[in-house]
Amino acid sequence: MSLRSMGVELHCRCIKTESKPIGRHIEKVELIPANSHCEETEVIATLKSTGLQVCLDPHAPWVKKVIQKILAK
Amino acid sequence: MSLRSMGVELHCRCIKTESKPIGRHIEKVELIPANSHCEETEVIATLKSTGLQVCLDPHAPWVKKVIQKILAK
Repeated sequence: MSLRSMGVELHCRCIKTESKPIGRHIEKVELIPANSHCEETEVIATLKSTGLQVCLDPHAPWVKKVIQKILAK
Repeated sequence: MSLRSMGVELHCRCIKTESKPIGRHIEKVELIPANSHCEETEVIATLKSTGLQVCLDPHAPWVKKVIQKILAK
């Protein structure tokens, strides 16, 4: 079974990140640790209204706050 | 476009959570805040070797540590 068929990305998925705090529009967040295919930790949010995926900066304070808030509920 | 077709789950996805710390086996983590369809925050990890998805307890200290470690890199 190839890595790709197991849903493992073979490259970075994010090109740029959303700088505006969009916490209340987020339906879910995916955290992808740096790995052999992408040296960057990637944070990908899915938006409530559109289902669109948006990359967030894992080091931005507002992103860390959004994630802490999700876990605190 | 129905919620379902936008990839929005219409119910909770987790029945039980993995209690054993499996941090080093995790390929990525999905955080789903409580919403109108599921009152619980859900944390779903995808495992490196198998691509299997495992539910984690958002309140377990080791889970919070894994997430902090991912964001710290």
